Amino acid sequence: MFDFKYYTPTEVVFGKNTEDKTAELVAKYGGTKVLIHYGGGSVKRSGLLDKVEKLLEAKGIGYTVLGGAVPNPHLGLVYEGIELCKKENVDFILALGGGSAIDSAKAIGYGVVNEGDVWDFYDYKRKATGCLPLGVILTIAATGSEMSDSSVITKEEGLVKRGYSSDYCRPKFAIMNPVLTMTLPDYQTACGCTDIMMHTMERYFTNGGNMEITDELAEGLLRTVKKNAVILRDNPGDYDARAEVMWAGSLAHNGLTGCGNDGGDWMTHKLEHELGGLYDVAHGAGLAAIWGSWARYVYKNCLPRFKKYALNVMGVENSGSDEEIALRGIEATEDFYRSINMPTNLRELGVKATDEDLITMAKKCAIGVGGEKGSARVLNEEDMLAIYRASM
Amino acid sequence: MFDFKYYTPTEVVFGKNTEDKTAELVAKYGGTKVLIHYGGGSVKRSGLLDKVEKLLEAKGIGYTVLGGAVPNPHLGLVYEGIELCKKENVDFILALGGGSAIDSAKAIGYGVVNEGDVWDFYDYKRKATGCLPLGVILTIAATGSEMSDSSVITKEEGLVKRGYSSDYCRPKFAIMNPVLTMTLPDYQTACGCTDIMMHTMERYFTNGGNMEITDELAEGLLRTVKKNAVILRDNPGDYDARAEVMWAGSLAHNGLTGCGNDGGDWMTHKLEHELGGLYDVAHGAGLAAIWGSWARYVYKNCLPRFKKYALNVMGVENSGSDEEIALRGIEATEDFYRSINMPTNLRELGVKATDEDLITMAKKCAIGVGGEKGSARVLNEEDMLAIYRASM
Repeated sequence: MFDFKYYTPTEVVFGKNTEDKTAELVAKYGGTKVLIHYGGGSVKRSGLLDKVEKLLEAKGIGYTVLGGAVPNPHLGLVYEGIELCKKENVDFILALGGGSAIDSAKAIGYGVVNEGDVWDFYDYKRKATGCLPLGVILTIAATGSEMSDSSVITKEEGLVKRGYSSDYCRPKFAIMNPVLTMTLPDYQTACGCTDIMMHTMERYFTNGGNMEITDELAEGLLRTVKKNAVILRDNPGDYDARAEVMWAGSLAHNGLTGCGNDGGDWMTHKLEHELGGLYDVAHGAGLAAIWGSWARYVYKNCLPRFKKYALNVMGVENSGSDEEIALRGIEATEDFYRSINMPTNLRELGVKATDEDLITMAKKCAIGVGGEKGSARVLNEEDMLAIYRASM
Repeated sequence: MFDFKYYTPTEVVFGKNTEDKTAELVAKYGGTKVLIHYGGGSVKRSGLLDKVEKLLEAKGIGYTVLGGAVPNPHLGLVYEGIELCKKENVDFILALGGGSAIDSAKAIGYGVVNEGDVWDFYDYKRKATGCLPLGVILTIAATGSEMSDSSVITKEEGLVKRGYSSDYCRPKFAIMNPVLTMTLPDYQTACGCTDIMMHTMERYFTNGGNMEITDELAEGLLRTVKKNAVILRDNPGDYDARAEVMWAGSLAHNGLTGCGNDGGDWMTHKLEHELGGLYDVAHGAGLAAIWGSWARYVYKNCLPRFKKYALNVMGVENSGSDEEIALRGIEATEDFYRSINMPTNLRELGVKATDEDLITMAKKCAIGVGGEKGSARVLNEEDMLAIYRASM
């Protein structure tokens, strides 16, 4: 196993009506003037935005509001948020929503505290030295951004999607009320479950440093999400299932399921990032559409892990060769994705890419990872193109 | 499931030679004058104390030293530490050791920051409003105090052992180098493994609020410790096994394995606390000696959990009635304890208590928990006495 750091300072306040504690938590973490940052109109329709505004007012905490964070959140809105924060002397950002609003809030937080162009961090040119403190009221269980150190932003020019990670942006608190996720469209719920599982699977399929306890936690988390994703398909209002998935979403991406390993593979994410940048597809669906092709391309290079996953997570029959078991696990995963109406290739995802498009994506992806990347198997541009082609 | 808070701000720095980062971490968390607090002479013999002193000196950080924290750490030394910190203007405590040194350090930290007698907190008379920041270099994997909010102190007068919990005392950082635990006597290693498992089992055997994901994590953690405790019995120098147990120890008591439940049962701990107060036995061994008698006394009131544990953790045969399966799980646990040379009753623990002594312990235990307590089954003084008698 490898040495590791584990740092998850976010105070999680989990359960029914926990959003009632918003003002109290903002005050606890020093917020006196808040930017409330959100995505579309759902937080207005649900009454959440209105409720939060009233709570802050009652506590005497000033605020300003910026909506409009879209899936694959845009750099343009980040710049707008930075300007607004500076103009209004904002000292705390409160993100209402899922990964889009939170990631956008994190980028705004970097931009307020650090001089120069915030895109520099996402473009690997500089490192941030701080971030405005931020809190979250989570309404979509998916990206795990509510506890994670990462954020992903898309630069509109050239549709370049890049992630940047540092402990500075880990939220001070995360309010998680499973009820707030119940109004999500079924497709988004399934995308979220896929994203959550993929955050753990990216850490699981590696060739270095695995710990038994980390595997146990990862496998248990995956089984839980797999089971509850199906429950939510049939009964989106099931509180317990919402809660299981929501808490799993945070644990899947706060570092817990990667302790001791080499950092994970992450190539499915990288391949999807290019898709997401070009086609604005839902992140979770994009991951599902790519994963099977990636897995079949790499499993022989990471056979013990694929076998373990097949047996312990997918529960396939323990018979035949290791390769047969591994392949059965990949098939079972695709069956599962289909069962919750997720795509398992680009066609089902609705992406009509020409071979030219695939070549462009592979090129951009290779540049994005600095040439080659992966732990289950190191992939270069040629490999990436092969996987894109197989996923058509 | 119940609502919950999850807050684990401790920065964990895990792996070989991580103690080299001590001075850097003390500085990061604002320490300029440090109390180095430890237990017996092992940190001197191993060279750790000397190494830490040199690192602090090289970084220009002042320090003062206080050893002598014993298992079931004493209030007298806590008072001494508080005086020393005030006299020397200490602004950071660095605990070297296991639960005894860390718990003692936490109590000193409370005493420096809060006016009045620090025992008031442990005597449930007042609540602390802060604690001196502290860091840990862990040399014994057991109590989980390196990430937990709890500390347990024994008042010498009347041998009263009491715990106090608040987020203020959660360490800022925990340096965990599995190599540092390799010089532990085998008995202490086994005690540590028992304590770690019991922290999760206390949270597992409840009648309220259980979450599937929490159960999955708890069961996975228990299987990992059970397996690696046996490996360490045969090969105390196995780095990977040391690491698995060490990381499990932190996760077993940082809150993770109790998310969503009613807070846990904790009666085995309470019953052992009285033992530990009167007889100064090793905490882990005391827990092992009590657990079987507790389990047989309560399992019918918490049957689904005892059955689940028996099947998923102890791996017993799934046949016969639920009660038979549950009892098989209890027996398997006792077999496991015996296999790592832990006692399963007071006699094996070496405690020669008269019935008078048991009556006294039951009385003190009942007072300590405010009359009655428990989630698997609520126990009063009469129940406690029955369990003590069964454990003879």
